[in-house]
Amino acid sequence: MPLWGWGSSGHDRSAGPDVISSLETHLGPGTDSVSRVSDAREFEVPECSLKASHADSLRSIVGNAGLDSDDISRLLRAHGKSYPDMLKMRSGHPGVVPDAVVSPHNRDELQRVLRFCSESAIAVVPFGGGTSVVGGLAAVKEGFGACISLDLGHMAGLESLDERSGLATFLPGTRGPEAEVALAQHGFTLGHYPQSFEYGSIGGFVATRSAGQSSSGYGRIDHNVIGLAATTPTGRIDLPAIPGTAAGPDLRQLLTGSEGTLGVLDRLDLQVVQSPRAVRDTAWLAPSFEVGREALRVLEQSGLAPTVARLSDEEETRVNLLLAGSSAKANVFRSFVALRGGGCLMIICFEGEPEVVAERSQAAGDVLRKTGCRSLGSAPAKAWRKGRFSGPYLRDTLMDLGYFVETLETAAVWSELNGLHEAVSGCLKNELVKAGGEPLVMCHVSHMYPTGASLYFTFIGRTVSQDLDDRLGQWWSIKSAACNAIVGAGGTITHHHAVGLDHAPWLTSEIGARGVSALRAVKAELDPNGVMNPGRLFATTD
Amino acid sequence: MPLWGWGSSGHDRSAGPDVISSLETHLGPGTDSVSRVSDAREFEVPECSLKASHADSLRSIVGNAGLDSDDISRLLRAHGKSYPDMLKMRSGHPGVVPDAVVSPHNRDELQRVLRFCSESAIAVVPFGGGTSVVGGLAAVKEGFGACISLDLGHMAGLESLDERSGLATFLPGTRGPEAEVALAQHGFTLGHYPQSFEYGSIGGFVATRSAGQSSSGYGRIDHNVIGLAATTPTGRIDLPAIPGTAAGPDLRQLLTGSEGTLGVLDRLDLQVVQSPRAVRDTAWLAPSFEVGREALRVLEQSGLAPTVARLSDEEETRVNLLLAGSSAKANVFRSFVALRGGGCLMIICFEGEPEVVAERSQAAGDVLRKTGCRSLGSAPAKAWRKGRFSGPYLRDTLMDLGYFVETLETAAVWSELNGLHEAVSGCLKNELVKAGGEPLVMCHVSHMYPTGASLYFTFIGRTVSQDLDDRLGQWWSIKSAACNAIVGAGGTITHHHAVGLDHAPWLTSEIGARGVSALRAVKAELDPNGVMNPGRLFATTD
Repeated sequence: MPLWGWGSSGHDRSAGPDVISSLETHLGPGTDSVSRVSDAREFEVPECSLKASHADSLRSIVGNAGLDSDDISRLLRAHGKSYPDMLKMRSGHPGVVPDAVVSPHNRDELQRVLRFCSESAIAVVPFGGGTSVVGGLAAVKEGFGACISLDLGHMAGLESLDERSGLATFLPGTRGPEAEVALAQHGFTLGHYPQSFEYGSIGGFVATRSAGQSSSGYGRIDHNVIGLAATTPTGRIDLPAIPGTAAGPDLRQLLTGSEGTLGVLDRLDLQVVQSPRAVRDTAWLAPSFEVGREALRVLEQSGLAPTVARLSDEEETRVNLLLAGSSAKANVFRSFVALRGGGCLMIICFEGEPEVVAERSQAAGDVLRKTGCRSLGSAPAKAWRKGRFSGPYLRDTLMDLGYFVETLETAAVWSELNGLHEAVSGCLKNELVKAGGEPLVMCHVSHMYPTGASLYFTFIGRTVSQDLDDRLGQWWSIKSAACNAIVGAGGTITHHHAVGLDHAPWLTSEIGARGVSALRAVKAELDPNGVMNPGRLFATTD
Repeated sequence: MPLWGWGSSGHDRSAGPDVISSLETHLGPGTDSVSRVSDAREFEVPECSLKASHADSLRSIVGNAGLDSDDISRLLRAHGKSYPDMLKMRSGHPGVVPDAVVSPHNRDELQRVLRFCSESAIAVVPFGGGTSVVGGLAAVKEGFGACISLDLGHMAGLESLDERSGLATFLPGTRGPEAEVALAQHGFTLGHYPQSFEYGSIGGFVATRSAGQSSSGYGRIDHNVIGLAATTPTGRIDLPAIPGTAAGPDLRQLLTGSEGTLGVLDRLDLQVVQSPRAVRDTAWLAPSFEVGREALRVLEQSGLAPTVARLSDEEETRVNLLLAGSSAKANVFRSFVALRGGGCLMIICFEGEPEVVAERSQAAGDVLRKTGCRSLGSAPAKAWRKGRFSGPYLRDTLMDLGYFVETLETAAVWSELNGLHEAVSGCLKNELVKAGGEPLVMCHVSHMYPTGASLYFTFIGRTVSQDLDDRLGQWWSIKSAACNAIVGAGGTITHHHAVGLDHAPWLTSEIGARGVSALRAVKAELDPNGVMNPGRLFATTD
């Protein structure tokens, strides 16, 4: 991925004149034009502080080719892909950068690297796909002699597949598409499609409790963890693949979501299913966000949960239609929605065996029509599927145009979703408007559970100035206010982006001081020198 | 419950002459006739070792009526309901007995009791329904001045019900039937029906990861935990009800299954569903255990999991038919099965909305017939449902007749179930035959998952002598051999009975030495003086 943005460098990020004009009408002009430092030589790269003797020791474990300390390797592992990460990288001021990138080839090397770093007070930041949007990958050196990025790219692939049990065992560095290609050869799928699918790694998905756009059907990744193993600085924890057990507290769910703070997940036994033979994508217009949510709740609670369920609020629907271009089809949709005085776009997809898909689509359609939703056919759903991984490119576009753009997500039980939506939307508008213009605050439901659902917010506004620190300050003000609003309204501080550095100050709000102490006790036991992904999960001030 | 056995004292435990003669034909005569010490005055009850000042302090927290130290109260809380528990209680030699029974009325009292016991080195054994079959309730005094049984009977009831979200909040001491009655008034059910349903408590179910006979449909209890809170000696951990979250390791699943070793669960937010409007019970004869398991696997993996799925192996089917009595109906079944040269009884029940039940029953029937199973109509399934909680009474009957009788359970992925069944059956036969006769070793599948299923073994044989220690020794030899066989064949040491004292020596086999260390670190943090349910989960020799 490019240093300054998402995905493939060659991907078209230009915006049409109608989009630019719409944005300018709402927000006013962007603060600056395209500004990306993309040549590594223009970056402010701090000196490598890894001692030569330590580098030699690490090379003796992973081989000469397993350790890189050139500027470009270090810069590529300096950050994830959050808005503040991108601000820093675009400006050429990355801040702290790892001193070296170390790539173990197998579990034995991994164990020796972690033991060595623990003994030598070298911080270790595990690096899977590099797609964190919560500061999960930033180098941290405070209190350590040096910091390495531990790249898991060489520990990748499908280790085994038990077809009868529907159980696939992956190495942690396996990327999403690599996993699906390997499974597809046997007629199976994991069905895990987060927006980061193309770049994210299986180990990263599990370490951060990723959800995936098809989680209503295939389950979120933590739901699919049947067994796993982790290498820690003090040894390995191997939890076998067991479908159900009463053997005490579930350590699988303690390591899942541990974000590299306890060790490195080195084996993932995941539930997989046979590849669907049929797919049915449909789109609907709900008269309001509230009615649409109620329709989704009824679907989920009556056993008709679709594989994919997404419901945009009024503002997201309006903006999506605005950005849909000027084709004849887009015009038809706009007219249809306008005729009904607005509404909320809903995407419902079923995947599976043909007869099951047909039956359930039919039954779901009946429920939706009964609650007042109108069919929009399949085109908007197919368009969504086609562009399902392209959201992050749009962020690059908006940053190129000089706008503030960010997302965040939460979840709550059904009865609290309305209050949560209002509290967070209101808070974001209040914060964004401080920089002027009419900010766009959009939301959709994208993951359903019997007891509740997630809310995903995308928000765009003006930036305060061209200055990096001012912009980082603006981001932090908005982020803090939004997290406080979420906590106040009964939502989780993160439904699928993980805690990282950014949400760490709110972990105590979520699990309490004794909960944080319990986690710290586990960390002290497994990682006594605290070298594993320092600063993540726990705020240093806790 | 009576001191010497299960359930209601008045329940008929007599065995018909045909049953007795069948057992004697296989096993030879029982070792002794009925022997139950049932008058508390005949028991060897150790002196109360709780200091008077400590008793006074506890009374100042829970009131005079909240502390009982009479013999009968102490004896009633001295053990759970395992085979060795019953041997001890029948003989009048209960061993260690709690010094007092303390019953807090609310969370505040609970917190103060735990803090006081921690400061005063008094061991605390939480007592919910008293149905543990793994030594979860035995008093432990080693290293402590005294031991109290913490009875949660006063902290019971449905605290709140969020109908829209399908979320019920219970106090921990709520018994199974009490929970269902409260929910039924609003048209909801938890659907959790372990064999201990009539006596077990909601807190106990969660603390031990109970499964329940309808788990294939409603999910095991750990699956239904959306939020919970626990009072520990060092404070409270409150984890709100959140349907899905990426906020770090899941502490809900750390407290679930913690068996009172970290604290006392004091609030349970559980997923509930609307009460089923239709129930369809069917029975089938599978040509073999292996074919039956394959049929269940196909049902589960194709999305047709029934609410209840049970499949007996050949021996369990044969014994069930033997014990079915001499009615005309029973004779017809025996003839039917005999005509087909034996086979395996399968119970399949669907519950839910009428049209869904009808559709799924039909589709499941098609799958079962295709795999060679034959319909047995509904009568055997209805008979199973009627007697679903009566198994423990049969154990009393067999113990009255002087036989060894025990159960154990495990689970594994589908591809390992055959080997696991053979290894454990073989081991149990080898062990039981040492006491003579032809032991009965029966097994059924009772909980299904996409990736695997559970195996539940019931085994009956001769006892070695009338001597208590000899009998306890026989039990431990058999139990140890079976646990080793399970570990060797890739099964979990317990699928739904929990760890307790009995499985503690095998926890390291399941989660590894580092896994045990991680749990011990959490315990040291939350319960630094180790007063909470000592000896449970972790073997003292670890």
